[in-house]
Amino acid sequence: MTAPAATALGVGLRVLVESPTTSAAQVVADAPVGSPQDPSAVARLLGEPLPAVLTFEHEHIPAAAFEAAAAAGVPARPSAEALVHAQDKTVMRRRLTELGVPCPRWSPVADAAALATFLEDVGGEAVVKTARGGYDGKGVRVVRSAHDVAEWFAAARIGGPALLAEEKVPFVRELAVLLARRPSGEVRVWPVVETVQRDGVCAEVLAPAPDLDPEVERAAVQAARAVAEGLDVTGVLAVEMFEVAGGDRGRVLVNELAMRPHNSGHWTIDAAVTSQFEQHLRAVLDLPLGETAARARWAVMANVLGSSLERLTDALPAVLAADPAAKVHLYGKEVRPGRKLGHVTVTGEDLADVRARAARAAAILRGDPA
Amino acid sequence: MTAPAATALGVGLRVLVESPTTSAAQVVADAPVGSPQDPSAVARLLGEPLPAVLTFEHEHIPAAAFEAAAAAGVPARPSAEALVHAQDKTVMRRRLTELGVPCPRWSPVADAAALATFLEDVGGEAVVKTARGGYDGKGVRVVRSAHDVAEWFAAARIGGPALLAEEKVPFVRELAVLLARRPSGEVRVWPVVETVQRDGVCAEVLAPAPDLDPEVERAAVQAARAVAEGLDVTGVLAVEMFEVAGGDRGRVLVNELAMRPHNSGHWTIDAAVTSQFEQHLRAVLDLPLGETAARARWAVMANVLGSSLERLTDALPAVLAADPAAKVHLYGKEVRPGRKLGHVTVTGEDLADVRARAARAAAILRGDPA
Repeated sequence: MTAPAATALGVGLRVLVESPTTSAAQVVADAPVGSPQDPSAVARLLGEPLPAVLTFEHEHIPAAAFEAAAAAGVPARPSAEALVHAQDKTVMRRRLTELGVPCPRWSPVADAAALATFLEDVGGEAVVKTARGGYDGKGVRVVRSAHDVAEWFAAARIGGPALLAEEKVPFVRELAVLLARRPSGEVRVWPVVETVQRDGVCAEVLAPAPDLDPEVERAAVQAARAVAEGLDVTGVLAVEMFEVAGGDRGRVLVNELAMRPHNSGHWTIDAAVTSQFEQHLRAVLDLPLGETAARARWAVMANVLGSSLERLTDALPAVLAADPAAKVHLYGKEVRPGRKLGHVTVTGEDLADVRARAARAAAILRGDPA
Repeated sequence: MTAPAATALGVGLRVLVESPTTSAAQVVADAPVGSPQDPSAVARLLGEPLPAVLTFEHEHIPAAAFEAAAAAGVPARPSAEALVHAQDKTVMRRRLTELGVPCPRWSPVADAAALATFLEDVGGEAVVKTARGGYDGKGVRVVRSAHDVAEWFAAARIGGPALLAEEKVPFVRELAVLLARRPSGEVRVWPVVETVQRDGVCAEVLAPAPDLDPEVERAAVQAARAVAEGLDVTGVLAVEMFEVAGGDRGRVLVNELAMRPHNSGHWTIDAAVTSQFEQHLRAVLDLPLGETAARARWAVMANVLGSSLERLTDALPAVLAADPAAKVHLYGKEVRPGRKLGHVTVTGEDLADVRARAARAAAILRGDPA
């Protein structure tokens, strides 16, 4: 989704793809193929003519790739020092706590005894996470006892990811703040959105978050800016938060970070003046940032999770016929159960209507019975 | 500009490019290289897996390419029978006259004597056009005597394009109607726009056309629909028209046709629910068409004509800084004097302001002194 923005701005994109059939390889000519773990692949990515900047579309970037960029004199944005906070949840929680950014109560849990102590502190129930490698509800489990994550402790003992525990926050709803920051310091923030999760995966994004208390909005934006500046993030930053009823730690608690264009910002493609993909390029190239205002009263983005690729293709005429104003985005990915294969964005004046239209379009694409 | 729409809809795009450095080759992987005049290049384009449809981004498509598509069982949209009306102005004028679509007075002019007769009929001044091969003011000349196009007559005698003459219409302004039509007959029309030409090239498009008389609007849309249906056009059709003060031939006279996404519709990328590029794909694939409503009160598109590519790249930070809400589109084309190298679209509530912003952004990109 970055390619159209790069083309429009006259920015040449060179992409390292894991396989010649991945989505990115379909839209960028002559993409070098290989893993970011493979030094020769990274060398091809950083070859002549030397790129102006190296950036990322996911967090799984090894230190060696950053070292190769530094050796070639290519700046990495975000930097390794910033990105580690999106790679390792323990590092992130420690730093955010230092910065005074409101977080759920948390603790690293080296073993079952540490988890038992934490569970006692937070009232018997907690969320255990692997510090590294989780996504879309994977690597996250609600537990009442160390037995519930026995195999994670076993894995950690033989070199698997470390674990941390967080209180299970009694949240009102989930919010996300998307912003971009460029090396020269300019920051632009999109309207705060509500994210609706189902089975640990984002199902819907409502932009802007309906009935948002100005105090909550201020707290949310302040927390996201504090993260961006405190961690010296460059590029797009998504900060997922819990809105809470209020208390001594304020009205929002930070849940997760992503330092890249993020699913909670896909609505910006069709419904903000500047999309997160264009803005990420502008930010990492240290170009002036674009206006982030919404272009519609309401925008709702509904994710399409995968079952079968044939179904998706077969459903295209039906979804286009059902709603001529729905914006359909398919990702050209190989299908795996539960994987995000696309999304639909709908805009309009009436939130209930917009939300129903987005949900219906996503259901048609999934092939759900009407 | 078609590539992003194809990606979003999950439509695989295979493009025949004239050189590996052309714009399209930069955004579509593994594009076969060659001319549409070259049968082996066309054969590579139509190779296995067989494409669902063949379509075009310009009019210069030889009959052999249509024959190859027919032999392979690939439908061409628009068809050769439709496209000839965008290739040959004499064929177009003859057919539009038969269909009763309002046109300037016109005549084929085989020789100087025929032109002299026509000049006498229309009051001493006329527009002479080459029937084929013109664009952006080329192949169009205002004349008062056959001497003014002596070399065109000379060229025509030795196999060059035939000529036709048209009255010089005393128009109020120029309008364009953009629509899309699919094989099953569905037609959707975007808001009528005003196009502002400078030196025979479109400089600005105002969407919608300001202060448009409803009677003129009706006549314009009716003429464009009559063209689409009368010529059995499939895909996007742009009909350029003169708005006239009124008379026995109505309030609009058709000037030119294009059967493809057209410069007068570039504003739709940023400011209509469905862009002309997405709609063209939907139309030629016979998918349900998208909503064509504008997403802003006013949109102004300003073309950036070429002087130097370095200037364009150097000016990018300045234009992004000057107007964070301007949408900049660069085409990655090789620079030739007067060639369209990009455009800027600005939207807003106040037309004078929107127009001034678009003009300023285009001037910055051209490198004009402020």
